[in-house]
Amino acid sequence: MVKAALLTVEEPASLEFAESLATELDVNLYVLTRKIFPDGESYIRLPGEVLGKDVVVLVYSMVPPQDKSIFEILLSVDALKSKSIDKVVLVAPYIAYSRQDREFLENEGVSIRTLLRTLRLIGVDSLYTIEIHKRESLRYFGEEAYSLSPYRFMAERLKLPNETLVLAPDLGAVERAKEFAQAINASYDYLVKKRDPITGDITLEPKRVSVEGREVVIVDDIISTGGTIAKAAQMLLDQGAKSIRVVAAHALMVGNALEKIKNAGVSRVYAANTLPKIESGLIEYIDVAPIVADALRNTLLYP
Amino acid sequence: MVKAALLTVEEPASLEFAESLATELDVNLYVLTRKIFPDGESYIRLPGEVLGKDVVVLVYSMVPPQDKSIFEILLSVDALKSKSIDKVVLVAPYIAYSRQDREFLENEGVSIRTLLRTLRLIGVDSLYTIEIHKRESLRYFGEEAYSLSPYRFMAERLKLPNETLVLAPDLGAVERAKEFAQAINASYDYLVKKRDPITGDITLEPKRVSVEGREVVIVDDIISTGGTIAKAAQMLLDQGAKSIRVVAAHALMVGNALEKIKNAGVSRVYAANTLPKIESGLIEYIDVAPIVADALRNTLLYP
Repeated sequence: MVKAALLTVEEPASLEFAESLATELDVNLYVLTRKIFPDGESYIRLPGEVLGKDVVVLVYSMVPPQDKSIFEILLSVDALKSKSIDKVVLVAPYIAYSRQDREFLENEGVSIRTLLRTLRLIGVDSLYTIEIHKRESLRYFGEEAYSLSPYRFMAERLKLPNETLVLAPDLGAVERAKEFAQAINASYDYLVKKRDPITGDITLEPKRVSVEGREVVIVDDIISTGGTIAKAAQMLLDQGAKSIRVVAAHALMVGNALEKIKNAGVSRVYAANTLPKIESGLIEYIDVAPIVADALRNTLLYP
Repeated sequence: MVKAALLTVEEPASLEFAESLATELDVNLYVLTRKIFPDGESYIRLPGEVLGKDVVVLVYSMVPPQDKSIFEILLSVDALKSKSIDKVVLVAPYIAYSRQDREFLENEGVSIRTLLRTLRLIGVDSLYTIEIHKRESLRYFGEEAYSLSPYRFMAERLKLPNETLVLAPDLGAVERAKEFAQAINASYDYLVKKRDPITGDITLEPKRVSVEGREVVIVDDIISTGGTIAKAAQMLLDQGAKSIRVVAAHALMVGNALEKIKNAGVSRVYAANTLPKIESGLIEYIDVAPIVADALRNTLLYP
């Protein structure tokens, strides 16, 4: 019988995600002591209860300030490995630095490669996340890295009518829209830039369908500054869409992103609970920890 | 003939240190492009000139926010290694996280172990720093890690009279005071806590000598909040010291540290140039890049 322990940190997003995971798996949850010294350095201390376990599942989301979360994860993993924990599983609901996944210009640092290599090298044996920006990035970690897609799960919870039109903000994101749409038997499409042949104006329009009179849901992985979503929403409303809602795996909501999205006419944002929650009537969070619980059960860590 | 390149980042402390190093070694200096995305993630891009070199010496001080500096170093080193640079030498004038060098309480994370292991694993082949808090910590990096002591060099530059009394704030720091004192043929001692047999009051006093009428220099490695120095200075002035000056390798000066030190009666602070400079008449910086230049020359990287 494998002895496994669930461990997290007293940071709201990680703690809440881990609490849900503990409930789903019906196991105890242990919490790291964490503090920050006056000069800004982090400190962690392992709870004694996790020592002597075969497997420790560490739940730690890479919330902003991302570099601090990352260093605290390295600290915690190194501490666990120094205590001869055989297998350290990292559940990082949000993985930072996923968008710099290649050299867009030559000689750029490939941040997600650096991050995933570092996690592997310091001792993470197995990695679970919700929807990494590009699934191919997981190869930088090596084997036992899993990105779990939340869109079907979120669609089933939201129960939107199948007349809804599901849109991806671009072709690269169309698989996300497809997954969401298929879960509710709705149709989907993606936005493309079109140039008006007379005025020369650039607009964002669905590739194949019209949004006239339709209730639209835009599905994306990360909302950062909200610029893309706000622009798309405005244009779709101009094209006659009846309403615009947004579904996202990760709602970073930098600065006044939520306000920008609201002003663009978006009526609701649904986000997975991978990052700290923002108090607002506009945004609703969906607990996706059950997806991770299922995945952990399937790897036979838990009965 | 080994082809080596000196590389740094546009951050004031690292850039100035690297510029001095380039002058000392009479080599070109290349600068990384660095930016920060709206969500707080760092981005780096290597200058094309460093590609094809056998050795790259990267000058990057771990200035606050330390975790960001650390992640940017990992990004840069990983990028260099991905470009088949044979040997990456990191010159980190200030190494963060050096004070948590063991488990003071059981099951604590040992931050300096995590940091130095991570640097080694991601690809740093050789590491130079100015005065790490505990020299034994370098074993976590492995071979080719060098901590260069700045006190003799600083003493020679400052040319203080040999009547100066050099004090360490505690026994653990006495080697620093000794090195500084011997460079100017001065005497040295360290502070101990003494309890007044009548009042029961605790005071800090030199172990062996009296400070009465003496010009005192306190030598320490890191000034963080300035609490230790301020307390020592006040007590030594109460005991009749004529003046108090302070010498430090790393002046972090968190919050109002410099003001606290000034209010305690310290007349001057001399610090090495390992961290961003603070504009103040009280503090004077000494360029210690020549120490690193000498060390690099000795490893035959440069003629």
